[in-house]
Amino acid sequence: MSYQPPVQDLMFCIEHLSHWDKVSKLPAQADTELADVAAALEGFAQFCAEQVAPLSYVGDAQSAHFDKGRVTLPKGHAQAYAQFVEMGWQALPHPVDYGGVGLPRAAGAAAVEMLNAADMSFGLCPLLTDGAIEALLLTGSDEQKSKYLGPLISGRWSGTMNLTEPQAGSDLGRVATKAVRREDGSYGITGTKIYITYGAHDLTENIIHLVLARTPDAPAGPKGLSLFVVPQKLVGPDGTLGPENTVNCVSIEHKLGVRASPTAVLDYADATGFLIGQENSGLEYMFIMMNAARFAVGVQGVAVSERAYQRALVYARDRVQSRPVNGSVKDAVPIIDHPDVRRMLLRMRSLTEGGRAIAAASAGLLDLGHHQQDAETIALAEFMVPLVKGFCTERAVEVTSLGVQIHGGMGFIEETGAAQHYRDARILPIYEGTTAIQANDLLGRKVMRDGGATARRFAAQIAETEAELSGGDRTAQAIGQGLGLARAAFEDALDWLLENSKQNIDAAFAGSVPFLMLTGTLAAGWQLAQSALIAQNLQENGQDSPFLTQKIATALFYAQHILPDCTAEKTRILQGADSLLTAAFPE
Amino acid sequence: MSYQPPVQDLMFCIEHLSHWDKVSKLPAQADTELADVAAALEGFAQFCAEQVAPLSYVGDAQSAHFDKGRVTLPKGHAQAYAQFVEMGWQALPHPVDYGGVGLPRAAGAAAVEMLNAADMSFGLCPLLTDGAIEALLLTGSDEQKSKYLGPLISGRWSGTMNLTEPQAGSDLGRVATKAVRREDGSYGITGTKIYITYGAHDLTENIIHLVLARTPDAPAGPKGLSLFVVPQKLVGPDGTLGPENTVNCVSIEHKLGVRASPTAVLDYADATGFLIGQENSGLEYMFIMMNAARFAVGVQGVAVSERAYQRALVYARDRVQSRPVNGSVKDAVPIIDHPDVRRMLLRMRSLTEGGRAIAAASAGLLDLGHHQQDAETIALAEFMVPLVKGFCTERAVEVTSLGVQIHGGMGFIEETGAAQHYRDARILPIYEGTTAIQANDLLGRKVMRDGGATARRFAAQIAETEAELSGGDRTAQAIGQGLGLARAAFEDALDWLLENSKQNIDAAFAGSVPFLMLTGTLAAGWQLAQSALIAQNLQENGQDSPFLTQKIATALFYAQHILPDCTAEKTRILQGADSLLTAAFPE
Repeated sequence: MSYQPPVQDLMFCIEHLSHWDKVSKLPAQADTELADVAAALEGFAQFCAEQVAPLSYVGDAQSAHFDKGRVTLPKGHAQAYAQFVEMGWQALPHPVDYGGVGLPRAAGAAAVEMLNAADMSFGLCPLLTDGAIEALLLTGSDEQKSKYLGPLISGRWSGTMNLTEPQAGSDLGRVATKAVRREDGSYGITGTKIYITYGAHDLTENIIHLVLARTPDAPAGPKGLSLFVVPQKLVGPDGTLGPENTVNCVSIEHKLGVRASPTAVLDYADATGFLIGQENSGLEYMFIMMNAARFAVGVQGVAVSERAYQRALVYARDRVQSRPVNGSVKDAVPIIDHPDVRRMLLRMRSLTEGGRAIAAASAGLLDLGHHQQDAETIALAEFMVPLVKGFCTERAVEVTSLGVQIHGGMGFIEETGAAQHYRDARILPIYEGTTAIQANDLLGRKVMRDGGATARRFAAQIAETEAELSGGDRTAQAIGQGLGLARAAFEDALDWLLENSKQNIDAAFAGSVPFLMLTGTLAAGWQLAQSALIAQNLQENGQDSPFLTQKIATALFYAQHILPDCTAEKTRILQGADSLLTAAFPE
Repeated sequence: MSYQPPVQDLMFCIEHLSHWDKVSKLPAQADTELADVAAALEGFAQFCAEQVAPLSYVGDAQSAHFDKGRVTLPKGHAQAYAQFVEMGWQALPHPVDYGGVGLPRAAGAAAVEMLNAADMSFGLCPLLTDGAIEALLLTGSDEQKSKYLGPLISGRWSGTMNLTEPQAGSDLGRVATKAVRREDGSYGITGTKIYITYGAHDLTENIIHLVLARTPDAPAGPKGLSLFVVPQKLVGPDGTLGPENTVNCVSIEHKLGVRASPTAVLDYADATGFLIGQENSGLEYMFIMMNAARFAVGVQGVAVSERAYQRALVYARDRVQSRPVNGSVKDAVPIIDHPDVRRMLLRMRSLTEGGRAIAAASAGLLDLGHHQQDAETIALAEFMVPLVKGFCTERAVEVTSLGVQIHGGMGFIEETGAAQHYRDARILPIYEGTTAIQANDLLGRKVMRDGGATARRFAAQIAETEAELSGGDRTAQAIGQGLGLARAAFEDALDWLLENSKQNIDAAFAGSVPFLMLTGTLAAGWQLAQSALIAQNLQENGQDSPFLTQKIATALFYAQHILPDCTAEKTRILQGADSLLTAAFPE
């Protein structure tokens, strides 16, 4: 088995970090028991490991294929996707009212992680469909919901997001695709959209495109964008498929990674679209969806990290090379016995588990905020989202790079598979908003806008965890010490940024990415510290297991090896703005 | 022009950091003027930019091709290589006595950087030939030198290093290839060697393989290895080419990067080889050569970093996206005006120039040590080599990753070229000894063996630079402050490691890579600080230029943004050994 879904850790995170006690009491979750979640995840784990994971290497080698406007996926993908639909996996996190299973978001995140660990290219199709479902749920009319949600939630149709154009990437205000209202109330959509993940493929009978476009009389810039639903095949009132819409796939990209996933250039030639919500509110709707989409990409980061870790661990156990430095043995040993290989493996594991932990915690907050409409919970959830995206994706690049390194020369050979994770991971800090966009979101919208109130609550909660740790054993105290230093660095950086946001906004934003990385690193350390406390508590109550021992060890390693980065980031923020802003570049 | 060789910075490093005043007075250099070096580098720069750089993208897309034992390079490579030979570029750093130009090592490093920046795949062939030349110069018999050095130094023949076997990577003691002495004094070499860079190709009329093998009665382990020269085509006493040797290329690897460079599996079937030096001294000879080869790979790291930086800089100037955060302009601006893009570019530039600076400084020390046989200089030079390899290659992975990030979605599209650098760079921390091997070399051989004496001299020299900086202007003082904190972190780590090397060798080696990165980061910051002092001095003497202003800005950025990593590494070393050594891994 090339991928073993980490169901035990996923369930640990759901049970202990995702605010399960409150989430499970939400009206939407009245019937959900932990055992139901575990059963669903076990079933999906088997599907991912057996049906999807074997596609990953072949899919990468073959790549999605484009020929005369048609896109074909690599061998085996159509069959696996048909199984995915038949077993109803797309429905897991979606509302019961529209045919979903209605699992809480943390369970949905666990499913996203497993599918994307099995194969990121495969996982992208359902991930985009999830995004379209979320968009229609939040902003669609009743008619639109009844027409599109059923087939999307069943997985029979897939969804896409059409934002980017050649001149409009991070800067969506530059979107130029036109939408002209017709007499029948529909719109004629004309323009070119690029980087459309699964914009064309042969897995489903229809594709539902969500498209940002601009009506003729709309204001310039981001406030003149409207959101449209544009089905690839038009859908009759009774849900039957009609003629093909005028949306044409012009080409697909030749990419560094996720090569089985087609990235399409779509040409809209007066294609028939239907307005979602109000005109000129498109960007607002996009922002509502954005949290979910960004969160999901963060989870992809955890996914590819986990897969890379498992591969490296197997190799490190098998590969025999060199005697131990301590001279204890005269023969060569498996490389996992060498300190630096252990260091690399533990970095991989602790960064992966840290990412999983903040994903679970954030998922719980998102559910609670959404259902309870509690302002402080919503604010904290939204504060966490850029951390999940920024931390888990940037660290995925590091983790997959370590995965290559552990393999030595073998890591550079494509057949080994480690290199594929390194290539796949590289898109994660870019799409759904680059790391800099996440950092601007964190600093601008989530920190400055409320004068740091949410950030201070975040720090105060961490300080509570530190207090608990300080009363524990030596290990707990060591974790608490690392956490305390990192939290202090966060507060120093926060004070400085809030102060400078008033006088010197450029200086504040010069530190935005360091601040994002500091905060994400701290958040993951905090959740791992919580995990260690929980594990120790379970051990004291007689539930000892290697899993719990490892959980504590991971948290300690993270506190001592990863959290020290926070102080370095603080130094960059406090000292580094001038040198960054004033340096000239050669002509 | 897709690559502009940074001749001005290369010459700055040679003139001011490579101990030019002493190197140029060495007997071997009596005739070399700086102007001669500049002229040679300008000429080679033109060749690299015009003839080689255009091959890079095409070569990657086509890859080296294997068919029935024959390896063909991508289109254009043979012509460019023929030009390289015709113009005599291989000869630049090699001794005049054997047909070389005899430039000092720092100039040779500058040439290696430019060629590998133009195309790492292309650059690998001459780089391996350099290695074979160095090996024969240091350990070959007079007959071997007269037979092989001329054609190698002219570039008409190429060289290879045959160390690795499937079971023997980092652990060369496991080499199993057999060498059986024949009656005529030659040896029959039998075995399989893997990862042989340019082990088979169509660029030269002969290939000279240097092969580690084991004679029948040799002791087990690393002390039973002997080194052989095995020409692909046998060479007559008069230098004429004879019949093909029984060295067969079985296959080439399908790699993540440097795809135009063939990585061969070579089968030696009782091939005719000639002993170099004494039997059972092969590993010792390899270690003599190793410093040069590792140094060269470090320079490749600088090379690919420079290329990635230039590409990102052009893109950041051209790409217009989003308004400035300070609201100073209502329109979108080139992304180079956004603080975080500046941050990424300056990280790329300062890490690249820092790497170039330590390469130049180390090259000078290697020349001085070699020619003067001064123990302290040799020790410092050998202390620097793993820093050049470790720092420049690990940082190249980071720099090329930032290069992708600056391009946003475009960075993930292969046609852009940024992704290729990211793929190419990934081999650098692996081959010629992984980062962990460099770290063991630094800690075991270069630090512990002399009780830290060389390391303390290194720190003392840095403290002298700090003293100079403290008497300077605000910028100099700020650089000095960053350098001082980093040097203090180094000394704390050094004390701890020396102490633990006696009681707990595992704990010491648990921190070996963090120590390597700390020390390399510090060394580069030191050399950039020196560069800033020199630039300020030149400015005070009326030689102001944008180049000098940028050099000072780069040093300041490095001190404030990169040097803070040293303290984090120290914390990992001092606190992190227990958690690293005791953690268990899941079964």
